Amino acid sequence: MDFVTGKKEKKTLELSDLIREDMEGKEVRVNGAVHSIRNMGDIAFLILRRRDGIIQTVFEKGITQADFSGIREETFIEVWGVLKKEERAPHGIEIRLEGVRILSEPQEPMPVAVSKWKMGASLEARLDMRPLTLRNLRERAKFRIQEGIVRAFREYLQKEGFTEIHSPKIGARAAEGGANLFRLEYFHHPAVLAQSPQFYKQMMTAVFDRVMEVGPVFRAEKHNTKRHLNEYTSLDFEMAYIDDFTDICGMETGFLQYMISLLKRDYEKELELLKVELPSADRIPSVPFAQAKKLVSEKYGTPIRNPYDLDPEEEQRIGRYFKEEYGADFVFVTHYPSKKRPFYAMDDPDDVSVTKSFDLLFRGLEVTTGGQRIHSYPELMKKIEKRGMSTEGMEDYLSAFRHGMPPHGGLGIGLERMTAQLLGEENVRETCLFPRDLGRLVP
Amino acid sequence: MDFVTGKKEKKTLELSDLIREDMEGKEVRVNGAVHSIRNMGDIAFLILRRRDGIIQTVFEKGITQADFSGIREETFIEVWGVLKKEERAPHGIEIRLEGVRILSEPQEPMPVAVSKWKMGASLEARLDMRPLTLRNLRERAKFRIQEGIVRAFREYLQKEGFTEIHSPKIGARAAEGGANLFRLEYFHHPAVLAQSPQFYKQMMTAVFDRVMEVGPVFRAEKHNTKRHLNEYTSLDFEMAYIDDFTDICGMETGFLQYMISLLKRDYEKELELLKVELPSADRIPSVPFAQAKKLVSEKYGTPIRNPYDLDPEEEQRIGRYFKEEYGADFVFVTHYPSKKRPFYAMDDPDDVSVTKSFDLLFRGLEVTTGGQRIHSYPELMKKIEKRGMSTEGMEDYLSAFRHGMPPHGGLGIGLERMTAQLLGEENVRETCLFPRDLGRLVP
Repeated sequence: MDFVTGKKEKKTLELSDLIREDMEGKEVRVNGAVHSIRNMGDIAFLILRRRDGIIQTVFEKGITQADFSGIREETFIEVWGVLKKEERAPHGIEIRLEGVRILSEPQEPMPVAVSKWKMGASLEARLDMRPLTLRNLRERAKFRIQEGIVRAFREYLQKEGFTEIHSPKIGARAAEGGANLFRLEYFHHPAVLAQSPQFYKQMMTAVFDRVMEVGPVFRAEKHNTKRHLNEYTSLDFEMAYIDDFTDICGMETGFLQYMISLLKRDYEKELELLKVELPSADRIPSVPFAQAKKLVSEKYGTPIRNPYDLDPEEEQRIGRYFKEEYGADFVFVTHYPSKKRPFYAMDDPDDVSVTKSFDLLFRGLEVTTGGQRIHSYPELMKKIEKRGMSTEGMEDYLSAFRHGMPPHGGLGIGLERMTAQLLGEENVRETCLFPRDLGRLVP
Repeated sequence: MDFVTGKKEKKTLELSDLIREDMEGKEVRVNGAVHSIRNMGDIAFLILRRRDGIIQTVFEKGITQADFSGIREETFIEVWGVLKKEERAPHGIEIRLEGVRILSEPQEPMPVAVSKWKMGASLEARLDMRPLTLRNLRERAKFRIQEGIVRAFREYLQKEGFTEIHSPKIGARAAEGGANLFRLEYFHHPAVLAQSPQFYKQMMTAVFDRVMEVGPVFRAEKHNTKRHLNEYTSLDFEMAYIDDFTDICGMETGFLQYMISLLKRDYEKELELLKVELPSADRIPSVPFAQAKKLVSEKYGTPIRNPYDLDPEEEQRIGRYFKEEYGADFVFVTHYPSKKRPFYAMDDPDDVSVTKSFDLLFRGLEVTTGGQRIHSYPELMKKIEKRGMSTEGMEDYLSAFRHGMPPHGGLGIGLERMTAQLLGEENVRETCLFPRDLGRLVP
């Protein structure tokens, strides 16, 4: 009988092995994709692309025992040879090739210059060829940083006692409203895709006190803007025993501080590659909605058109104001008008026209919506009645409240928006692996 | 201007604070849900349920300054009093209450005995009232252990150089076949829900070499069995530069070993609560499909009915065989017949009727399907042609192969099945927070 006892050890090395001081002059073996080729005649530089970085290898006619004509960009190879220090090469090393084994060959050359620093293709073109264009070093680096954001979210909250949950994405009814829902048939029953894990994460605060979820959410909004996607990844948390929404702001600030230090520690290469300037989250200004409107209206001489909502330009101006006045990249805008928040948002007893809620703006874009929720069943029913809403389809949600729920609140962070703002990307499609929008369902 | 500088500090303590040696006799403050009440007349024991465990508190008439009549099961409270050692209480401590603040009150008593060790309700009834029944200590413990499995998956693979991705769940076409797909309308275009991240994770091996994803998958299968869900959480990985499928088995074995040690370390309380006997993954037998069939047929005298597939009873017998013969909880069954595997599975050149693939059985149930994939474009096209398949809707996938793909393979693990087998649950619905099946779309 054969037995599997663990991970198989390989003869091929990692970049972290190759850059060790004692490797100079040693025979090494490594694999990678031929990312680019600089052919100088008798000598050719093959740049290998690997998950951990790029490696310069040198193909020498008459020395390297391999057929150069079989090697093109996007040929996947295993190579061996002697490691040499070379200041001008990435990581200060290169491999003088003795042999090359071809693992897999492309049939066609790339339709875009994936190996170039900037591909020189439009966003639409890059998205159309996403499985290919993601091989570009800058493109893929964005999603390494995105991974870092998600890791930070989970690691930080896990340390704070949050339990990770997986709520269903297919449901019978919607958490809020019904206009923006994708509908489907579920074994002859009408069903919808979840536009948020809101109801589930709230109900779970009575089970685990603190819960988080990272998952897809679906919004059938007919917006075609730089800030909207119809499917995106939402970072959600919900926590019990809060005094008010400022507990949520505090927890988010803690996460942001942890995220920044984790990115600095583990994603330095990618930050450098993309020239990312990390923000500071040490001191995040917090300003009530109405005051924020007034401040920017006065400073920039812009009229207040809609007292109940912020338009994108107004968010940008608020971002600009707090950058100029306080050097802040983030700002909590609090006490949003009740009429613009969902029914479960807790009204402020001091002024019931506003809620105990907030948005977080990051460099002038809303990246988080959060707040305290109503936990009292009578209060919840009062609000539902006041809004003239039907409770149909909310039976389970309301049952949880009828049987007791802790004071609680939480937030949702749009992962693609957070990544875009961090990287200085203007379009949220840049930071979604395979975006879904009004006109895009592939690749 | 107000500033948020980090997580807010609270006066209430955590269980880890309370059990410190130096806390005896100290005034403490803690919050929780009233999980159960034992009323002895002048004295009443309130057991508080918190995320970190349960705490015994003692309400004494005339001493505790609070109205006992306002306190019921599922009242959420903050309490303060003096901490005393008490051997018979959970964690060896209790709090003699001085005061109680009611945070939130239930309107109705629980419809099931959530505070009991075993609720004595049918699975259907428990699922119907899931937001309530999850408050039961045993029920919630299952999902803590499930969290541990997911953490282990990500932590282990991250250390092995895997990048976490988020692939879209709405798509234009299916990864494989079309029979089991949920269909929806996407802005007047026909769309489907992803039954697997298969194509995306494969394409991403050319970008990051190693990728993983934890996310929902959707299967419109009309099975109503103890082992099927129509929406479940899939743990997927895919890795490049493999020699063959045994690299994938090795990586999975490494993950399982890590998972077992992480659960032992961080989820001891829950394992004990549920009396879980952790399996060993030190040495996992690996047996070809045809041989496995033969072995159990011979040992148990059962006929081989279908030479191309394993039925559930056969899987159980294979599990039993390897437990009896080798003391093994896991077994890799390899070389599945080609006709039962998807087109992208790599055939074994030594016998093209079987594939370089495997399932992992855990205590007699398939919890993983994996294998090496075809990476050569001509090979892939040959297989597609041989099967008489259309390439419609696979343009992007095939384009990635035309432009070069590394040798690669991967697997998908059903999270709910893995959890169920670990906990000894017979029905996979027990280990899904809010299951979706043929008849269940709520809660």
